[in-house]
Order: sequence, then C-alpha cells, then structure tokens
Amino acid sequence: MLNRTYTDMLQEKDVIFEIFHYALSRIREIGAENVFDFSLGNPSVSPPPQVAEAIKDELSERPPLALHGYSPSFGLPEARAAVAEHLNRRYGCHYGPQHIFMTAGAASALAHALRALASPGQEIVTCAPCFSEYRPYTAGAGLSLKIVPASVEDFQIDFAGLEQAIGENTAAVLVNSPNNPSGAVYSTATVKRLAQLLRYKSDELGRPLYLISDEPYRDIVFQDVDSPYIANLYEDTVTCYSYSKSLSLPGERIGYLAVNPACRDAEKIVEICPQISRTIGHNGAASLFQRVVARTGEATAELSVYEKNKDILCRALKEFGYSFVEPGGSFYMFPRSPEADAFAFCLKARQHELMLVPGDIFACPGHFRIAYCVPTERVEKALPAFRALAADYGMI
Amino acid sequence: MLNRTYTDMLQEKDVIFEIFHYALSRIREIGAENVFDFSLGNPSVSPPPQVAEAIKDELSERPPLALHGYSPSFGLPEARAAVAEHLNRRYGCHYGPQHIFMTAGAASALAHALRALASPGQEIVTCAPCFSEYRPYTAGAGLSLKIVPASVEDFQIDFAGLEQAIGENTAAVLVNSPNNPSGAVYSTATVKRLAQLLRYKSDELGRPLYLISDEPYRDIVFQDVDSPYIANLYEDTVTCYSYSKSLSLPGERIGYLAVNPACRDAEKIVEICPQISRTIGHNGAASLFQRVVARTGEATAELSVYEKNKDILCRALKEFGYSFVEPGGSFYMFPRSPEADAFAFCLKARQHELMLVPGDIFACPGHFRIAYCVPTERVEKALPAFRALAADYGMI
Repeated sequence: MLNRTYTDMLQEKDVIFEIFHYALSRIREIGAENVFDFSLGNPSVSPPPQVAEAIKDELSERPPLALHGYSPSFGLPEARAAVAEHLNRRYGCHYGPQHIFMTAGAASALAHALRALASPGQEIVTCAPCFSEYRPYTAGAGLSLKIVPASVEDFQIDFAGLEQAIGENTAAVLVNSPNNPSGAVYSTATVKRLAQLLRYKSDELGRPLYLISDEPYRDIVFQDVDSPYIANLYEDTVTCYSYSKSLSLPGERIGYLAVNPACRDAEKIVEICPQISRTIGHNGAASLFQRVVARTGEATAELSVYEKNKDILCRALKEFGYSFVEPGGSFYMFPRSPEADAFAFCLKARQHELMLVPGDIFACPGHFRIAYCVPTERVEKALPAFRALAADYGMI
Repeated sequence: MLNRTYTDMLQEKDVIFEIFHYALSRIREIGAENVFDFSLGNPSVSPPPQVAEAIKDELSERPPLALHGYSPSFGLPEARAAVAEHLNRRYGCHYGPQHIFMTAGAASALAHALRALASPGQEIVTCAPCFSEYRPYTAGAGLSLKIVPASVEDFQIDFAGLEQAIGENTAAVLVNSPNNPSGAVYSTATVKRLAQLLRYKSDELGRPLYLISDEPYRDIVFQDVDSPYIANLYEDTVTCYSYSKSLSLPGERIGYLAVNPACRDAEKIVEICPQISRTIGHNGAASLFQRVVARTGEATAELSVYEKNKDILCRALKEFGYSFVEPGGSFYMFPRSPEADAFAFCLKARQHELMLVPGDIFACPGHFRIAYCVPTERVEKALPAFRALAADYGMI
C-alpha cells in the first residue's frame, strides 16, 4: 500500500552507508585512532570565522521577524545579487540577480535544473565516473540516465562515447568537474571540445542541448590546474552550486542555480524554478543562510588542507605501486583496483582498517575512491595500511 | 524545449501574489499607513527570544564543523527526540524518535507524506475550503486531488460528500485544522466521526486509508476551543508540522513529519522518507534550525496577538453586517462575500484600500479570506474601511 518505488529503493544496497557503518562499529571495537575512514565526502575543515560573524551580525542588526521571515521563492534579492556579483568578478561573466535561483544545496539545484530543462520520458547523458545520486535525481524527475563509460586514462571525456550516447531523446548533458569520485578537473581543451560537440548536436537536433554543470567542488582546485568556468565556454549552461564544501556548511543546505545569461530562454528557466519548487516541497533555502552567503562573499574554509592530503597520498601511493590519475581538485582520488573486482579489494582493505569505496557505484568498476577530507595527521597515519595492502597484492 | 508542465503553470494567475503586488504599488503611491493588506499569511509577531539564544548558544558551545555538518537524512537525533518528547508530553502520545522525520517545513513534510502513502495515478481527497497549494503538491507527486465541497455553515466536514468522494482509487484523506483559509478547528466530534468513516472505508477497501493531517497552525488555537490532537483519534495518521507560525520562522524552512506509532507500517513509512528525499532534492532541514527547535522546546512566539485581532474583527464585522463563522484558530477568517462573485467583491474592497483574497482559490466561492496576521493597530485602523465597504452593499 506504500509507494513501491520507494520501498523498492530500500532493497538496494547503499554501499557507502554500509561501509560507513562498518567503520563506526570498528571504531567502537578498536578505537578511532586505529580506523582509517576514507568513505565519506564530508568536509574536514572548519567553516571560516566569517560564517559565525555573519550570523552574529544578522542577529544583532536585523529584527528577528525580518531575519527569519519568508524569502521570495526565487531567493532573497541580496543573496541573488551577491552570487551574481561574485561570479562576474571571479569569472568575468555577466550574470544579473535575475539569472540566480537560491536553493537548498546542490541536490536541490539539480532537482530544479533537471525538471526545468527536461520533460518526463527524456534522457540525461553523463560521463562515468559519476556521483551515485544522479540515478535517483533523474529518476525522480521521470528521466532516464545514460552513462558514457569512463575515459580511464585521464578521467576527461570519452568524446566518441559521448557523441554516440546523445540522441533524439537527450535533453541535457550533465557534467561534474572537479569530479566526484575521480578528482579530475575538465581542462579548457576538454570543455571546448564538449561545447563544440554540444553545439553541433544542438544544430542537428534543432533545439538547444543544455549543459547542466554540477560544481560543488569548484573552489577546491589544486595549484596550477587548468580549470575553466564551464558556462563561459558553452552558452546553454545551467550551473548548480553548493556552499557545502567551500564554506564547510553541508548541513545547512545552501546553494544556487545560475543560468548563463547567454543561454536560450535564460530568464524563463529561472522564472519556472519556483513553479518546480511548488511541486517538490522546496520553499527556498533557509533565510539566515542566504544572508550568510551574501555576507561572506569571497571567504572559504581553509581548503588548502585537501591539496596537502592529496600530495601526501599521491607520493605514497605511487611509491607503493598503486596506479592512478593525479586529481586536479575536489577531495577524492580514484586509483585503479589491484584486482579487477573492486568490491573484493575494498573488503581486503578492511583487514587493514582502511575504509574505501568500490568504483562500481560510480559506474566505473575496477577502481576505488579515497575521500581524503580528513585531518592530514589521519592521512599520514594511514600510509602503513596502504603499504600493507599493496604488499598483500605483491605490488611492493 | 523547456518542461511544459512548469511553463504552463506560469500562465495560471497567482491571485494572492497579484493582490500582494497591487498592495505594494498602493503603498508606494499613498503610503503604508493608508493600505490595509490582509492578503498574506505571514506571521506578524517576533520569534521568541529563545530562538536567538539557542543560535548564540550553539555558536558558542559547538565547534562550527560539527554545528554546520551534515545531518543524517532522517534528521538530527536530538531534534527527532525533542519532537517526540514534546508531542508525548503535550498530547499523551507514544512517539519515539523513529517516528519523526525532520523536514524543510510543512511543504516538504507533505511532499514526503504524499509520496510515501500514495502511488502515481492514485487520488487524495480533501475538504474545501483548502490551501491552494494542495494542487501543485499532489500534482507533483503524480496524484489527483478531489475536493469535497465545503460545509459552509460551520466549516467542519460535509460527511455525506466525503463518504461519496472516497473510492477505490483514494490513497489518503488530507485535512488541515486549524484551517487555512476558514480558521475552523475540527472538533472532537468531527474528528471522531472522520475516524469512524475512515475505519469503515479502510475495511471496505481492505487496506488502510491514511489520514494526512497538515497542522502548521496547531499552536494557534483560541481560548476554550475544542481542539483534539488528530492522530490520537485515528491510528493511520501522518502529521505534517511546521515551526513557521509557532516560532515565526517561515523563512528558515523547519518542520517535521510524525507517523503515529499505531499507524500500520509506521516505521516503514519513516524509513522510506529519505528515499523520497533522494528523488526530490531534499537533503534534510538546515542543521542549525534542527538544533534550534530541539533547544527551544515549548517556546512559541507571542501568539495571543492573533486572538486579539480575531476578537476585534469579529466584533466589528458582525456590527457591520458581515456573515461569518467565528474562527477557532489560525490567523484567518473567511466571511461570506456580500455578492456572489467574491472576485468582484475583493476588487470593490480595493477601493477602500482593503486587500482581501477571494475564496475561489481555496475551492470555496462566495467567501473571502482575511489574513489578520498584522499588528493589532492595523486591524483597528482598517475597521472604517470594512464599514465603508459594508455600506457600499447597503449592509449598514
């Protein structure tokens, strides 16, 4: 009598959740200092002090009835303006507040983008490896998800595969750079070639083929990595952003959807977002956190820790014989599994109290994800375990 | 190329929005002191001081990384426990934390309840007058909404109509007491009779007919009004709550869904809520506000203002010859329109700078809604306008 769609979803194994719970049980048994949990993509650095300051300033300066009052369904004008100005200053774009829709995080931004740009029955094309939640996100909008196999030698895009995947029924292509789980950052060359393909396919289809750019890791890009702002290279781009990682505010659910001013029907897309909200129970992001992000401007958490962790891991894993593409951003890396079955490999890793996630759930078997959003000291402590695991496979 | 469902929704006239914007334009023309805006259901009393105290305490006591971190998809354990304890203490129920799912307000609670208890193609039955957003809420879940005509003499339930409306395809009945727009509070007798009908129909259908009780105004009930806790009188009840009105926090999007422990499949219903979240871009309510409602406990805003406003309006409107059912709660009243066409009446009201909403949009023509969530001084200042309007109709 309950809705079968959702009761059936309970039957699917939630792999990351299961690993996380195994880690918790090991922590109870042998103590947190002996368990190396690299399973979850949860920020490990504190929000910057500007967040608490912004909250305190709002509490002291604004009457509480106004502070906590309803926000317009598009978002608070000052938050929309602050986002537009920030993007324009940083990337030389031309957003106005009318191109910004404030959302409860990137998940909510994607929920709106998918429903605005595609109609039930249509298809979204994305490239492996990809975030596992893209499946329920698209299914919930009545869409199917087609995943192009990974370009495993660099985790850029397999363009032959992508070209083949795009068809009559494709509404949009969904990309995620810096990427979860690979840590790859799409280069200018990659994005230009993607734009070229999308323009060509748009012409062929006689309608815009939209690009949905999911960018929660945009502010975690490592030194000297070529990292273009994607919307600058393709007109029909809708960008989905979250402050979860840049400000270490994942629990507060604050982000936005930004429609490229050059996108066809740009203002119409934003205009229909509140209509979408009405059908999915989204009544805006929390007012207080809209004001916080409007106030904190360019501030970010101390994100350099992630690069430090990446450097330590890359140096050590290379020495231990692991094969991987060095990440350009995010707080993930995605080495090749020493045995073909990444599930078996991740189970073996547990014997060394290493919690890793098999690539299969990111549509990329034969690899495993390391989420190194942990204190640097934990990364260092974990190196002997990675070494012992390599030794099990005779790699060292 | 954009999704027609939502572009079509833009064509529908948003009556309340239009009235609100007319009010704003009049305010610019003749000043706020001369415009009597009763169009919006936006709380007019400050959040209680406990809200700011709770935020400050959280900022000073909890490390920011933990404070703003991800909440489990069901909600923070302390928030779920606090809600369960509050309901048990206040209404003598037996909720455990496992019966509570924290949501981004009542809209989000309803989005989950509708998707959990009904499957696309099924039908939800509700009674007029009803909140206009029930249409997009049900449509978004792939459901149809059947509205039973109002029992206009008391705004309780037309049981003959309800019995007739429930059929093979009905998944749940949706009620809202205290009611928006009528201000009616369902009496114990009404709810008992409703429970009796639902039990009878459940037996007939051979499956539970769920009751979804939408209760954002539960804490605004006037003196000596009989106001039972609905889930105590019908087992298969899922209660949707928001703190928007009780704590005057509408912008912060915080509420919950509570499944009656005696409800069939109670724990399963809660268990599937996070699965629903994955498909609609809901990743939990803001962590900080989950902590705030866990801390503020029994506190509410100074809600007595609404009763004071109600008393003033009822006394005056009666004197001016308006016909209405005295509200038992909420901050609305819903008098009969002096002319059959409530749209025409509301346009006439504008000539006296009175902003009122025609009942048609609540599926109850021939009535109009007064949202008296305004400072008492504004209610008093508006009385001559209500009198002049009555005079236009020869009522006085």
